[in-house]
Amino acid sequence: MFDVNAIRRDFPILSRQVNGKPLVYLDNGASAQKPQVVIDAITRGYAEEYANVHRGLHYLSNLATEKYEGVRGKVQRFLNAGHEEEIVFTSGTTEGINLVSYAWAAPRMEAGDEIVLSVMEHHANIVPWHFLRERQGVVIKWVEMEADGSLDPQKVIDAMGPKTKLVAITQMSNVLGTVVDVKTICAAARARGIPTLVDGSQGAVHMPVDVQDIGCDFYAITGHKLYGPSGSGAIYIRHERMAEMRPFLGGGDMIREVTREGICYADPPMKFEAGTPGIVQTIGLGVALDYMMEIGLENIAAHERRLADYATEKLHGLNWLNVQGQAPGKGAIFSFTMEGAAHAHDISTILDKKGVAVRAGHHCAGPLMETLGITASCRASFAMYNTTQEVDALVEALELAHELFA
Amino acid sequence: MFDVNAIRRDFPILSRQVNGKPLVYLDNGASAQKPQVVIDAITRGYAEEYANVHRGLHYLSNLATEKYEGVRGKVQRFLNAGHEEEIVFTSGTTEGINLVSYAWAAPRMEAGDEIVLSVMEHHANIVPWHFLRERQGVVIKWVEMEADGSLDPQKVIDAMGPKTKLVAITQMSNVLGTVVDVKTICAAARARGIPTLVDGSQGAVHMPVDVQDIGCDFYAITGHKLYGPSGSGAIYIRHERMAEMRPFLGGGDMIREVTREGICYADPPMKFEAGTPGIVQTIGLGVALDYMMEIGLENIAAHERRLADYATEKLHGLNWLNVQGQAPGKGAIFSFTMEGAAHAHDISTILDKKGVAVRAGHHCAGPLMETLGITASCRASFAMYNTTQEVDALVEALELAHELFA
Repeated sequence: MFDVNAIRRDFPILSRQVNGKPLVYLDNGASAQKPQVVIDAITRGYAEEYANVHRGLHYLSNLATEKYEGVRGKVQRFLNAGHEEEIVFTSGTTEGINLVSYAWAAPRMEAGDEIVLSVMEHHANIVPWHFLRERQGVVIKWVEMEADGSLDPQKVIDAMGPKTKLVAITQMSNVLGTVVDVKTICAAARARGIPTLVDGSQGAVHMPVDVQDIGCDFYAITGHKLYGPSGSGAIYIRHERMAEMRPFLGGGDMIREVTREGICYADPPMKFEAGTPGIVQTIGLGVALDYMMEIGLENIAAHERRLADYATEKLHGLNWLNVQGQAPGKGAIFSFTMEGAAHAHDISTILDKKGVAVRAGHHCAGPLMETLGITASCRASFAMYNTTQEVDALVEALELAHELFA
Repeated sequence: MFDVNAIRRDFPILSRQVNGKPLVYLDNGASAQKPQVVIDAITRGYAEEYANVHRGLHYLSNLATEKYEGVRGKVQRFLNAGHEEEIVFTSGTTEGINLVSYAWAAPRMEAGDEIVLSVMEHHANIVPWHFLRERQGVVIKWVEMEADGSLDPQKVIDAMGPKTKLVAITQMSNVLGTVVDVKTICAAARARGIPTLVDGSQGAVHMPVDVQDIGCDFYAITGHKLYGPSGSGAIYIRHERMAEMRPFLGGGDMIREVTREGICYADPPMKFEAGTPGIVQTIGLGVALDYMMEIGLENIAAHERRLADYATEKLHGLNWLNVQGQAPGKGAIFSFTMEGAAHAHDISTILDKKGVAVRAGHHCAGPLMETLGITASCRASFAMYNTTQEVDALVEALELAHELFA
């Protein structure tokens, strides 16, 4: 049974005040807060169990290695990957997608080859492909969204052609909360022999994920959005794709032997993990995933559905508020602007005075903002520890902002 | 005044036992332990002050941004760089050197261009250049060391030719403790118009560094060896080189604008920092550098000199121990093998039973091990918190191992 008040007590920061008001943290799309078990794991990691991993033969090194490597299986279970060896640790989704771009895509794409993206991608799933456009003449095919902010899978499928070498799509818009039917898209791509990358930065936070069911080739997650430490993350890479990849970052751990003349690389996934990794933050990520799985990913999703429904009703009741996107089944992420002169930055500043933390800006989604015809919006993004009372606090603060700027 | 016992009390892990013995941690070359102030900064970062940086306009985001960005100036002071904008945050030296390889070297090097390396480089300063050899036909020119493990700067200078595009040299061997006269090398390279990269992974830990005095173009450091969190680091990049670099990782934060058609990049150093950074570990790195600077880098170096002298005397007194390298002025890093059948791994296992943590293996220095004619060694590497009593404990444990294997 899902007890949001018990969960809130697990997150020490949620009991603090901001500007003399209780913190109402609605900036989860940017980064989630951390439960005490994660903080404790980090503290214990440094204060009692720290050493470098893999290359030691002493007690602390073996202990740290065991804990660190144990996280691979946790990520595998979290994503329901078929094999632990299909999980590569990263510093987050950005590094994960760049790994795919540099290690898999760059060596195999030629001028005129196409990559299919939706207009609602985050810059992390745009800029690495723009690099290939700038450097190698790869063509980006943009799929437009519908008026309600949904993404029609058929339009993505229609964009796939004989020159398409990759389809890279978010599972959930970080601005609109739109949930994308990646399974249908991946099945169609697979039928055409086109590999698929799913940006799971938001999706994995808000719904149970099964990469085998989705059928994608790459699925990237970010630890700090999953209630884990900053600088942690992972990417699922299907075996066949991994075999096609050349190494990306070079250094220790990803080699078997280095001589003056050449290198013998380690087997995957180590081949793609160079240098001393983010040891303690990866251990912390494992604890965060355990925490989520213990609460239950379905339970979290159900709670957030209630929050989304409640917030939708409340926010759409404010007739001076423009809420961007109302795709059916959208998640608890709300982007909005206010009629009149108020800039998104001003609104967020007023909200902050009331303790309500939202984000304002382009949300690293330039093409989507172009599509929406705005340069900035406010975004309230919810997590498992948020409550309907916090939706009320948001609405109350928005009403104050409306009064001030109207 | 340098009080090693007071310093030891700052590191909680040093009071623990391993295998029923007090921990004697001599694996600092792989990673250093963390003082309580660093652990506290991490805990506070997550429990009280956490949010994503840069793009927020709310209290916690501004607070985290201020603390995070404040570290740039600390790194600048630590390395005596001329400008804060010459510091790029990384996840460690491996990412730093790969940044130079991908963003600066790869686009400007052609087949036949040469990179000068010493045989005592760490794989982090070898594999990225082997990539350029494999992928672009770049030639690596290896500079051999002297019989005592020292590196003659003149031999490095002699290796520079009309096709040399980069000299990449460690300031301190992670295996032998050899200190390299990088200043003389960089001056000669600069006179020939050849950029220089100094791998400061070990050097910055054990001696005061002044990148302006050294005169290098790139200087990479790793936070976890500097008593900071895992997954933290930075690289100094001289202004002129930064202006020549294309972006490396693509994502949020490193752009000014992204449209369907293209990208307008942010100014350096942001141009080279993609995605949500390692926020809390970078803040922790700043605290670690403050801690070191407060104790005094000269004081730390002087203490380690005493340790090195004491250990040199003791270890060279064991006539069944082969200590690799005895370069004048070498630091407190000792690599050794034992006469007879004992493999380095077996020795380290015996030492571990006595609570003495050393590393065994190739130490990510393949070409150096080739030169030494061994496949593995044990390495005892010291830090500011080690004592002469710990040298005695090492010697005692080695004597036990010698008895067991002789």
